[in-house]
Amino acid sequence: MILSSAYYREGQYLFGRIEERIKEAERRLSRKVIRLSLGDVTCPVAPCVAYAMEVASREMVRGETFRGYPPSTGFPFVKEAIAKTYRGLVNPDEIFVSDGAKSDLAGWAYLFDKSLPALIPDPSYPVYRDSSRLVGREIVALPCTQDNDFVPTIPSFEGRSLIYLCSPANPTARTMTMKELQEWVDYAIKTNSIILFDAAYQAFALEGPRSIYEIEGAKECAIEIGSLSKSASFGGLRFGWSIVPAQLQVDGIKLANVWRRRQSTLFNGVSYVTQRGAEAALSKEGLQYSAQCVEKYRQNTHYMASQLALYTSVQYGDAPYVWVKVSTNGVDVFERLLEMGVSVTPGEGFGKEGYQYIRLSGFAKREDIEHSLTILSTLTQNL
Amino acid sequence: MILSSAYYREGQYLFGRIEERIKEAERRLSRKVIRLSLGDVTCPVAPCVAYAMEVASREMVRGETFRGYPPSTGFPFVKEAIAKTYRGLVNPDEIFVSDGAKSDLAGWAYLFDKSLPALIPDPSYPVYRDSSRLVGREIVALPCTQDNDFVPTIPSFEGRSLIYLCSPANPTARTMTMKELQEWVDYAIKTNSIILFDAAYQAFALEGPRSIYEIEGAKECAIEIGSLSKSASFGGLRFGWSIVPAQLQVDGIKLANVWRRRQSTLFNGVSYVTQRGAEAALSKEGLQYSAQCVEKYRQNTHYMASQLALYTSVQYGDAPYVWVKVSTNGVDVFERLLEMGVSVTPGEGFGKEGYQYIRLSGFAKREDIEHSLTILSTLTQNL
Repeated sequence: MILSSAYYREGQYLFGRIEERIKEAERRLSRKVIRLSLGDVTCPVAPCVAYAMEVASREMVRGETFRGYPPSTGFPFVKEAIAKTYRGLVNPDEIFVSDGAKSDLAGWAYLFDKSLPALIPDPSYPVYRDSSRLVGREIVALPCTQDNDFVPTIPSFEGRSLIYLCSPANPTARTMTMKELQEWVDYAIKTNSIILFDAAYQAFALEGPRSIYEIEGAKECAIEIGSLSKSASFGGLRFGWSIVPAQLQVDGIKLANVWRRRQSTLFNGVSYVTQRGAEAALSKEGLQYSAQCVEKYRQNTHYMASQLALYTSVQYGDAPYVWVKVSTNGVDVFERLLEMGVSVTPGEGFGKEGYQYIRLSGFAKREDIEHSLTILSTLTQNL
Repeated sequence: MILSSAYYREGQYLFGRIEERIKEAERRLSRKVIRLSLGDVTCPVAPCVAYAMEVASREMVRGETFRGYPPSTGFPFVKEAIAKTYRGLVNPDEIFVSDGAKSDLAGWAYLFDKSLPALIPDPSYPVYRDSSRLVGREIVALPCTQDNDFVPTIPSFEGRSLIYLCSPANPTARTMTMKELQEWVDYAIKTNSIILFDAAYQAFALEGPRSIYEIEGAKECAIEIGSLSKSASFGGLRFGWSIVPAQLQVDGIKLANVWRRRQSTLFNGVSYVTQRGAEAALSKEGLQYSAQCVEKYRQNTHYMASQLALYTSVQYGDAPYVWVKVSTNGVDVFERLLEMGVSVTPGEGFGKEGYQYIRLSGFAKREDIEHSLTILSTLTQNL
């Protein structure tokens, strides 16, 4: 076979598939479908971000301020801005800038040998599973259900592995506590494993840790992946980072050196204009703006959860999603709601344990959420 | 081993290593080193590009014009702008937008099974070789020397392979003729191979084909990778594309579908702001501006080549590089020139055949080139 994975023959990426179904439905229904299915934000970008990007764009026109290839791991000014939000937990040299968490998750998936099995929460962001399957890595599912309060249980498996954790989690919204995360760090150290900690929703955490580096020992075993997509509305601007602690070693070499080699060889850095935008998003003004957006999404989410809790079992927490249990299966509910003009995400897309669930997104606009709840309530008895 | 490749243990990416050496030298010499070593442009970005990015930045601030996640393969407006430059050779659906040629080269390297050997011109852009080594693919070098007028010779090897071609080429600057390229397309079809055609310097081609799709049969076997880095000064803004012809199939499936799956799963698209900038760069005004920059680099290159030809054998052509033969080895010359305040690229970095060569870049500023030539001439007898 000429392709590196048979998985390429299998269908399409979850959210691409849903988007196609929505467009079909819109043509059929001759009206717009309300999207509660995407993790795409609705708060626009902060004015200070746009201003910084305008200034940077103009700099590119003048010979004295023009910039060519950026450093492949990011400009010092933006690494310092990121480091500041970690309040001393990480230093700028441990930060490697990228065009987003998805690209970094892909890079890490291919960096580690495929003989290393992946422990992946079920349900979780489909990219963990999809990229593992593309690499040809064995997947050990970590069920997150009502039984374990949606937190992955430490497995009996004692081998070395690549452990995916996300907190606050997508789609269950659950934030792991210090104690829960400490158990995973201890497990990783004991088994000589690597944790890939997805911190895309860190700005949403209320009480639990916002970074895995708040946990003792995490710098010996964990890589953290951050993003501005959710908090600072950078989905359309593309900016993220990986943190690789200075002391983290694999096979006797520093992982930071390996990642630097990887990034400089296979990636050419992030747009200077975007990096100036990111710096502004991480300024005091930018962070205040983000906090307001996060609060708005939280209110949306809690409103949806409280309304739906009248009819069915709902799981929600810090991340702006409601994980709703349905009586039949999530795909059926997805189909029925789509016919009624509302798109949700079938839980199955996040893993087998999502079979009887749908995910609703609190990133949507308030009026859309209110309108959808009316439609959802007509389905009440059968939800 | 936990890493997917032992190659991660080996040093650093060529241009990263040179940049470090330059910085060391600058500290030691207490003055700026003139960089003739990088393929980084010096013409600033076109005013129409910056203006388009400013407008797009402001759009992101207002709810009505804010954009979230971009389509992972690019907005239709920019695909149409790219397609237009191909004058009917490709249609927008065959274009997949990315953050640059390097990222795409990496993606393709990992997409194909590692059992497929790579045929790689020697000398050539180090990423072809580095990414093949990271994947664990066997490399068959295609020597490009004075003996074959710097064009890779069709090999006797009759197996299926992944063929890297670049025209106009880096570092030899040689543009392949229609006939030379036709022979490679015929060879690829005969051996059921895939050509990865690197068209990063296509805007520099004077007489030879600018796209591999000008060649009969290329749509059955070739992927073309384009970039705005060299012509439109987008190195710092990051924009490129892959063209995957609609009829190109591997293992019985359309390669375009496979690439769409890859991109949507492992990549989240390019910044909306950058895409608007790229659209402007590809407008009539943007293309006129780029043509002026290209002409300036060409004059630089020809000036350098004509001066150096007085002392030694030089190869130059359409791409803005001079490939200079030296009497000892390129690394020695690199070291000696660095001590005199000029950085060049040791030819070895592009492959074994570059051992007795150095590469000079015509992207540098004219005054820097003139000053360097004075220094280079003091080394004349020993060059």
